[in-house]
Amino acid sequence: MFDLKAYLSGHNQRINSALESLLSTSGKADRILEAMTYSLMAGGKRIRPVLCLAATEAVGGNPEDALPAACALEMIHTYSLIHDDLPAMDDDALRRGKPTCHMAFDEATAILAGDALLTLAFQTLSSMELRKAEQAAKWLRVIHLISHAAGYCGMIQGQMLDIASEGERLTLTALKSMHLLKTGALIEASITSGAVLGGLNSTRISMLESYARNIGLAFQVTDDILNVEGDPEIMGKAAGTDKLRNKTTYPSLLGLKESKDFANRLVEDALYALETFDQKAEPLRAIAKYIVARKK
Amino acid sequence: MFDLKAYLSGHNQRINSALESLLSTSGKADRILEAMTYSLMAGGKRIRPVLCLAATEAVGGNPEDALPAACALEMIHTYSLIHDDLPAMDDDALRRGKPTCHMAFDEATAILAGDALLTLAFQTLSSMELRKAEQAAKWLRVIHLISHAAGYCGMIQGQMLDIASEGERLTLTALKSMHLLKTGALIEASITSGAVLGGLNSTRISMLESYARNIGLAFQVTDDILNVEGDPEIMGKAAGTDKLRNKTTYPSLLGLKESKDFANRLVEDALYALETFDQKAEPLRAIAKYIVARKK
Repeated sequence: MFDLKAYLSGHNQRINSALESLLSTSGKADRILEAMTYSLMAGGKRIRPVLCLAATEAVGGNPEDALPAACALEMIHTYSLIHDDLPAMDDDALRRGKPTCHMAFDEATAILAGDALLTLAFQTLSSMELRKAEQAAKWLRVIHLISHAAGYCGMIQGQMLDIASEGERLTLTALKSMHLLKTGALIEASITSGAVLGGLNSTRISMLESYARNIGLAFQVTDDILNVEGDPEIMGKAAGTDKLRNKTTYPSLLGLKESKDFANRLVEDALYALETFDQKAEPLRAIAKYIVARKK
Repeated sequence: MFDLKAYLSGHNQRINSALESLLSTSGKADRILEAMTYSLMAGGKRIRPVLCLAATEAVGGNPEDALPAACALEMIHTYSLIHDDLPAMDDDALRRGKPTCHMAFDEATAILAGDALLTLAFQTLSSMELRKAEQAAKWLRVIHLISHAAGYCGMIQGQMLDIASEGERLTLTALKSMHLLKTGALIEASITSGAVLGGLNSTRISMLESYARNIGLAFQVTDDILNVEGDPEIMGKAAGTDKLRNKTTYPSLLGLKESKDFANRLVEDALYALETFDQKAEPLRAIAKYIVARKK
């Protein structure tokens, strides 16, 4: 039996210590670095970096090689949360049970800390030891995959659609497209860049993309379900907030039962996409099942 | 006689058409892309991209090869202006005689358009045609130079120092350190990345760095002087605003006459740093002189 808990905890430790050492290299502790550290080390689930490392393993590579990409993905995810929480955007005071960055510091510092994390991601993806001739082209490809997914054709467009649709009732198709951009694109890039760094077999990239799209949506559907029936104590955040905000969610469109079926079907499709992969893809399979089973 | 005007106008056209084609590749025109285009094509002086191309030429390279870096530098410069103008930062309503991005659109769109330009810079620096094995390592080095300069050890720290010192009287040393970070770091990276892409002779990198630091400061000192005695009609922005805001500037610390002498000394030092370069460095020399002679 594959032990997902031990796997996640091992990778989380690896990722957290790599992130800490990337933050500490500047030497001087100022307010920006403090705010970056506050948000980056606030106890995120590290889903994207773990998926990146698991994808490297699934194609037969060494996850250590993909660690800079894993860290960069978490920095980009964190910057997007800091900016999304700003008063001009979602105006959230709490994140993971702690004050959001602009509440703990101030708005200017939060904007700059987000900018700095996004920039540090690309600094991390281009550090000296990655520049050996035979590796450089691979890393350049990873930078392109990640920047494309994070940019205005991906995550940023998703956030814009989310803001623009506030208060409006979305169709299921519009809701899915928005999520495929807002969270799906970076999840997909996590998996494809891990695979590229693990020495991807290119005929299989489309299967990993299909896996990624399915678990990305399943993750969002489960988030919506937890917002209805999750335990605030376990989640570290309030439940019922989507309904209060009149947000279009999968439960609001499909009902709770149908949403759970939908999430389960997405996970089945994700597992089906991995059919030609051997036991090295066991972590990716276990993560897909965990995404719908989780309680927070 | 070297014709700087023709040189700048030729390079500006090259840069503007490259920027336009980079913005149009997504195919769909949405609000984010509109805001990105609004700010990026608002008639900036293109100092950083021109310096990048001129540095490529100075070391004997072909400026066409450095065009993606030139465009990325202008995108990063523009994103930093959009975010600096936000209400939580400098709260400026006008930039280059036009409404700032958050005034023309709204605050959320301005934050996201800035984020998207920063991300697009790195997408541009990693596009497919740059990934040939013998080139990839060079581009990875350029990504590192630029992200380091733009990040929390460079430009972002400078902006943070600028905000933190608002209303305070700075010493000359503190003012210089702040400018070396806020504007100097990215100007230096413009020149060093141009040189790397032109096939840099590594013993000369420190001379180009010295050139860059001197013209970066000279640029700032001249900006401060123009804010005192410039013609608002020619500059396209109000004069006297620094004094109104009680900002520490070179004229406020040194007086106007002494500030002009200081700017001229900086340009002399910049020219001295180029002494071992041949006539291919003529554009860099002419730009240094132009920086203190300009009226806007």
